[in-house]
Order: sequence, then C-alpha cells, then structure tokens
Amino acid sequence: MNRLYHYALSPFCRKVRLTLAEKKLEVELVEERYWEKDPEFLRRSPAGKVPVLRYGSRILSESTAICEYLDETVPTPPLLPRGPEARYEVRRLVTWFDDKFNEEVTTKLMGERVYRKVMGTGYPDSSNVKAGARAIKEHLSYMESLLDQRRWLAGNDLTLADFAAAAHLSVLDYISDVDWNRSEVVKDWYAKIKSRPAFRSLLADQIPGFPPPSHYADLDF
Amino acid sequence: MNRLYHYALSPFCRKVRLTLAEKKLEVELVEERYWEKDPEFLRRSPAGKVPVLRYGSRILSESTAICEYLDETVPTPPLLPRGPEARYEVRRLVTWFDDKFNEEVTTKLMGERVYRKVMGTGYPDSSNVKAGARAIKEHLSYMESLLDQRRWLAGNDLTLADFAAAAHLSVLDYISDVDWNRSEVVKDWYAKIKSRPAFRSLLADQIPGFPPPSHYADLDF
Repeated sequence: MNRLYHYALSPFCRKVRLTLAEKKLEVELVEERYWEKDPEFLRRSPAGKVPVLRYGSRILSESTAICEYLDETVPTPPLLPRGPEARYEVRRLVTWFDDKFNEEVTTKLMGERVYRKVMGTGYPDSSNVKAGARAIKEHLSYMESLLDQRRWLAGNDLTLADFAAAAHLSVLDYISDVDWNRSEVVKDWYAKIKSRPAFRSLLADQIPGFPPPSHYADLDF
Repeated sequence: MNRLYHYALSPFCRKVRLTLAEKKLEVELVEERYWEKDPEFLRRSPAGKVPVLRYGSRILSESTAICEYLDETVPTPPLLPRGPEARYEVRRLVTWFDDKFNEEVTTKLMGERVYRKVMGTGYPDSSNVKAGARAIKEHLSYMESLLDQRRWLAGNDLTLADFAAAAHLSVLDYISDVDWNRSEVVKDWYAKIKSRPAFRSLLADQIPGFPPPSHYADLDF
C-alpha cells in the first residue's frame, strides 16, 4: 500500500492527496509532525519536510516533483496538458501559489493562527495576520482575472494549477480566512473543485483544537 | 531577439541563462533592479521578480517553468532525461537547491552580504551569515554523497539539477563563500560545469561595488 507522510493542513500535502485521489491511487495517510524532527522521519526525508510518499519501493519528496511523477506514470486523467505553452502556464501557476501565495498569504494566516499554537512558537503576530488578510484579496482578484477568460485556472481543463490553488484556499477556508463573497467566479470555481470525489478526504480532516467551521465541508457554502 | 530581464547575482536568473546558452538560444540581457518596483516592469511581471524572459512574442516568468518550457520546445541538448524516475530526481533536486539551499544558504550569505547593501536595507545580520556558512558545509556534503555515485548530480548526464546547483554556488563563489577544498568531488564537478561554453557569460559578470575575486572566473581555481 502506498503511504503518505503528511500534515492535514499543509497545502503541499493536500496537492499530492488531490493528485493521488484524482488518479484513483489508494494511499494510507500517516500524520507526521515534521517540526518535531523525529530521527526516523529525517532518515526517510533528508529535506525534513512533508509530504513524503512511499510509492511502491520508492520514497518520494517535494510535492510538485511527486505530482509530475504521478502524472507521467499514471497519465489518466491528465493533470498537465499536452502542448508546451499550456504546460508552461500550469507550471507557472503552480509556482505562483506554492511560492508567492504561500509566502504572502498562507504562511501569514495559517502560520500565525494555527502553526504557532500547534508548534508552540508563541502568540500570533497581528501585523502578519493583517498583511495576509490584505494579500489574499489581491490574489482572489488575480484568480478572478484568470477565470474570467478560462474555465479552469490554467486553461479550459482542470490541471495541477487548480489543485495547487485549491490546496492553499482549502486550508485557509478551514480557519474561515477566505471571503467567498468577494468574487462569484472564484466561488463557482471552488464549488466545482470542492464537489469532486478527490476532495472528499480533505473535507473530512479534523485538527485537534481547531474544529472546522460548518461551511468548510458544505458543498453548498 | 529574445530578452532576459535579470539580475546578475540572482541564481534563478543564472539557471535560465545557463539553459538558454546550453541550447544556443541568443538573448539580450537587461538588468532589472526588481526591488525598485518599476511600474513598467511590474506590468510585464505580475509576480514582481526576475527572471522574466521575452521569448518571441511571449513573456515568461518563474525560472523552472521557463527552463522546462525551453527544454520541451528546444529539445537538444536535453536537460531532463526521458524516464519518469530520472525526471523526478532532476525535479526533486532543482527544488532542493531553489528552495532549501536558497533559504538556508543563498539568502543567508548573498542576502546579507550583497543584497542589503545594493537594496539599502541596512547592515548584514551576522547570525544569518554564520548560519549560512554552517549550512553550506552540510549541503556540500550532501552533494558529495550524490556525486560519489553519479557523474552528475541527478544521474550520469548533465541536467537542469546541475544548472540549479551551479547557479547558486556560482553566486556564492562570486563573494568567495564557497570553500572548494572541502570536497574534491564537488570541486571536480564545478570545474567541469564551469568550463562549459554556457558558463562564460556568468564568469564575465561584474557587479558595481563588488568586484569578483580572481579565482571566480579562473577555470583552474
């Protein structure tokens, strides 16, 4: 059985979980509190972070490298398109969310509100929370500008870019940090992706000490 | 003519320059002091960072997405291998250097010693410099463990992983922050990559106020 060492509110782990589920690859989820630096875990993962996927006899790390590997070895349904221009756009947007959105929004909100408490690193820094709350508005506008012209973020088909974006937004939605009323078109996009069977496992997540709001798992939010 | 908006000591720009040169694609280099947030530049690059490549009629950003695009559209010489396992290993290592090495080493040393002065953000933080100097030793050991078993970092052929690593090490070498005597095998690897024609433009870089040491451009360092 494949096994994913993960943390439920990590968007990088969620992107891999969505990819595995979309390709109907079964996986056993094992929670890894990676910041505790368990020596056994560090042996499996020299980079010291999650996700780490045991896939057959292989140990794989780095979420986007894992997803591209899964897409190349289990091509159906495809998560990257065929043409180089379209593939470029998917990769650009995956990086957009995993680098820029993560730095400007996810680490500012999730990092301050949840990780500090879970990891025991002190009280939230309210200036970071404010900066994150400001930045997410700009990012939702950017997503709206893309979705005004496309069915999905990178084009007319669902791709890894949608999973990257939905992974970040879903962890923020878990702590009620996404104002879905800002953009009808972004809300419609999220409703579409949230109703996919691949999303079910994410909607069932429960973090001790942080119960999700009722709208989190509601498909009609 | 293709045009690359870049900053000479950015490892992300250098990875793209190496890829362009290896594929014999001519490019005009335009220095972009991206931290000054010139409105004209921000219009071209919504992420506000370099590199940005004008390639024919297209504007491309995100260094790894650019390099994979160039590799798919100009396949010779290849910078990613054919098999999914080998491609995974290249992508894992590109991320290793661009995320982990960058955060633990490049931003700590280059960020403190050069960027602070160039961007006018104060004096170097010596605890960061010390942490970077410590971390680079571990990374050189990791590279040695890979190169003990392989001709190049990701396998027996030169790949984008070597360019990612060399891009970071070359900017650090520019400020004499790489102790090449730590590992014969890593030094040999760098000597091999440094002597490639694709490397010449990097070795000619000159940053005002920061003259390179004499060994920087010396192929017999």
